[in-house]
Amino acid sequence: MLTYSFADLGSDSLYGHLYKCIRNDILQGVLAPGTQLPSKRAFAKNLGVSTITVENAYQQLLAEGYLYSLPRKGYFVAAISGEPAAAASEQPVPPPAAPEREEYFADFVTNSTNHANFPFSVWARLMRETISAKSEQLLVNPPPGGIRELREAIADYLFQFRGIAVAPEQIIIGAGTEYLYGLLIQLLGRDKIFAVEDPGYRKISQIYASCDAACRFLPLDAEGVEMAALESSGAQILHTSPAHHFPTGIVTPISRRYELLGWAARREERYIIEDDYDCEFRLLGRPIPALQSIDRSEKVIYINTFSKSLASTIRISYLVLPPRLLARFYQQLGFYSCTVSNFEQYTLAAFISQGCFEKHVNRMRTFYHRQRDILLAAIQKSPLASAVEITEEDAGLHFLMKINTQLPDEELMQRARRAGVRISFLSQYYHQPQQGAEHIAVINYSGVERSRIEEAIARLSRCLQL
Amino acid sequence: MLTYSFADLGSDSLYGHLYKCIRNDILQGVLAPGTQLPSKRAFAKNLGVSTITVENAYQQLLAEGYLYSLPRKGYFVAAISGEPAAAASEQPVPPPAAPEREEYFADFVTNSTNHANFPFSVWARLMRETISAKSEQLLVNPPPGGIRELREAIADYLFQFRGIAVAPEQIIIGAGTEYLYGLLIQLLGRDKIFAVEDPGYRKISQIYASCDAACRFLPLDAEGVEMAALESSGAQILHTSPAHHFPTGIVTPISRRYELLGWAARREERYIIEDDYDCEFRLLGRPIPALQSIDRSEKVIYINTFSKSLASTIRISYLVLPPRLLARFYQQLGFYSCTVSNFEQYTLAAFISQGCFEKHVNRMRTFYHRQRDILLAAIQKSPLASAVEITEEDAGLHFLMKINTQLPDEELMQRARRAGVRISFLSQYYHQPQQGAEHIAVINYSGVERSRIEEAIARLSRCLQL
Repeated sequence: MLTYSFADLGSDSLYGHLYKCIRNDILQGVLAPGTQLPSKRAFAKNLGVSTITVENAYQQLLAEGYLYSLPRKGYFVAAISGEPAAAASEQPVPPPAAPEREEYFADFVTNSTNHANFPFSVWARLMRETISAKSEQLLVNPPPGGIRELREAIADYLFQFRGIAVAPEQIIIGAGTEYLYGLLIQLLGRDKIFAVEDPGYRKISQIYASCDAACRFLPLDAEGVEMAALESSGAQILHTSPAHHFPTGIVTPISRRYELLGWAARREERYIIEDDYDCEFRLLGRPIPALQSIDRSEKVIYINTFSKSLASTIRISYLVLPPRLLARFYQQLGFYSCTVSNFEQYTLAAFISQGCFEKHVNRMRTFYHRQRDILLAAIQKSPLASAVEITEEDAGLHFLMKINTQLPDEELMQRARRAGVRISFLSQYYHQPQQGAEHIAVINYSGVERSRIEEAIARLSRCLQL
Repeated sequence: MLTYSFADLGSDSLYGHLYKCIRNDILQGVLAPGTQLPSKRAFAKNLGVSTITVENAYQQLLAEGYLYSLPRKGYFVAAISGEPAAAASEQPVPPPAAPEREEYFADFVTNSTNHANFPFSVWARLMRETISAKSEQLLVNPPPGGIRELREAIADYLFQFRGIAVAPEQIIIGAGTEYLYGLLIQLLGRDKIFAVEDPGYRKISQIYASCDAACRFLPLDAEGVEMAALESSGAQILHTSPAHHFPTGIVTPISRRYELLGWAARREERYIIEDDYDCEFRLLGRPIPALQSIDRSEKVIYINTFSKSLASTIRISYLVLPPRLLARFYQQLGFYSCTVSNFEQYTLAAFISQGCFEKHVNRMRTFYHRQRDILLAAIQKSPLASAVEITEEDAGLHFLMKINTQLPDEELMQRARRAGVRISFLSQYYHQPQQGAEHIAVINYSGVERSRIEEAIARLSRCLQL
């Protein structure tokens, strides 16, 4: 009769060990297909274990298909076809190479925020309060658009601070704008042609491409998207940031805004996606009103994020859908679960409705204002001063710095990189290479440590040989 | 000269009020295009405000395009073409109708978990510890696959409890399996044909359809996916749950598993998505080993979620990619940000690595075991006992209940609904209607309150007229 040793049992249960021994013999061909196994009682006696142990091992092998049973006859080894038999590997596989990340002394490209600026204690308190006050609601599946409290808090905030009057039902919460772009492609249809700004955020067109949606690149003039290019592009959907274009800093004036709305109103299937990613951080004057707030034809889909205003590692963004798209959303995409956990939705709702968000944004605007002034002063004091021209410094968290040089942008970037400073150039954000866009650095200062600004500028001066 | 009253200033700043007055006059046509505005100094004197106030109002109107300036001449009203002028609405729009949700006395369909079972105090403590110990890392953008600690904790857990040996680099974290399905479509290509199980989770095929990926429905035999149907479907990608199929409860035996692996190995572009959604909750014996653990050809993409094992409202799921797909992932999709916030990733990492997850799963398995026994006992005691046959009660969080009746499933469901009890039927999960699948209720008991089980069964007995 079959015999196995229970000597080196390790952490296994008796039945687990027996199961593995028999499975191994089946996989190795020691027990051929069709072989009858001993009766439970006889086998148990032979092995010196209980009948239950054998019963459990047989049941498991039966469930996994290594054995089959015939009524009143007993258990037999199954025929295992397919691949050459192989037991589960007990060795971890060698780790495949993952792309390396570079460390910089100063990073003028990243969108990440400094940990000193995050309101940890308030956030921790609200999280604690949420867990103790909302334990029941925390485990109730929210509607596909997100929890009611958060959508109400956002609607209220948009009305108070952005002049956008919407009902909470129009707001759809999602785990980051990148996720929401994908959702919009599904909502509006992959057969549509999407148009993006050139230059622009590369990720937007990457996502359209990755989702196999046709994408056109529209040139800009001083007021934003060129109307003639938009008209002739054949696009039905325009993705734009009229309040503050990245990276040029263009603010689309009111006349062009009406032209854009007029374009959208002329065809049933046309929509504008208004990407209002950094509206909170205009340093001069009032925020630029949203295109959404003057849209009378329900043609604007507004999108914004807390990743920019709160922390890039908190993944909460939202759409504001015009009423006419809302029914379509529930009908077509209502089966999707909301992608943000209830814990963070309730915490953020409290953070906004208790006024902490407004306070935080005001504090950050002051911080960024000061950050920019220190950076500009550092440039002013450095050898860079005479060789650069700064523009668009009031609009948001970056400005443009035109460098008087003959060196190609790629060379400038590599030199800065070797000096530990990460910068990007306007030319990199173009899909269609553009004359006159060279030597213009895009300086994003939101993530740079203040104590390093002076040294970073000194390094830039040196490596650019100015 | 232009004159405005500052009497009803409200919460506005002086310049904000002035800006609104001028903007309004421009939009109403009171100030015609080309009109020159007063000089800042004269206007300030006339209004009794400082020059700075006028300057700020002009700058804002300039930035938004209501004015244009000519050097050494002054400020002029811009021509605003396009739509008929309209100021931002100050009235919230009427809320569009959102789909209503029904409340049930007992819900045998939902996947949501009972709040009494969530380890709130442990989770709150780990969250607090995370916030105080990791404040710096919390704001550092993670790699696209997620933070290292969580991927290590999951790799370790998979090795210990699931016999899956993988490197942390192979693990990709995402905000729910639904999101990850969409990511896989992008990774594998929308030109591929995806095959799903029929019957099956409707959401899976809905997501393929919503992403415009071709989808075939494969019939099942007693061992799972029918091989002949798979071969003739033309599919390259098979989406399957071999450890515990929903809703039939089928466990795919080892021989069929090798056949599936053999099918995948025969063509370069073929892959199997192994959806292991509830592997933790097999109530009898050991967990069924994953297909991934016997895959020698790097053909299995493993996917699992914490939404089932922890709470449906915590949106954290993960993929395990075979090494050969990893380079493709980083190259094609490496631009995507991870969709789960760092706060929850670090908290979950601590929860797993400190052994709390294992403890929680064990506790829940015991809870569900007991829940099932109470439910089966309630059925046994009720008039239902003589009219139903229970199967697949050991495999996971649901079982099948065949009802001896002539009433159509739709009628059974409506009667239960009117009695406050939500149940679903096997027939609803079929894409191709199937003979012999009628009168079989799928009873998911994970979310039903224990104190209501007896009453729910009594109601079911009554409304089914048994």
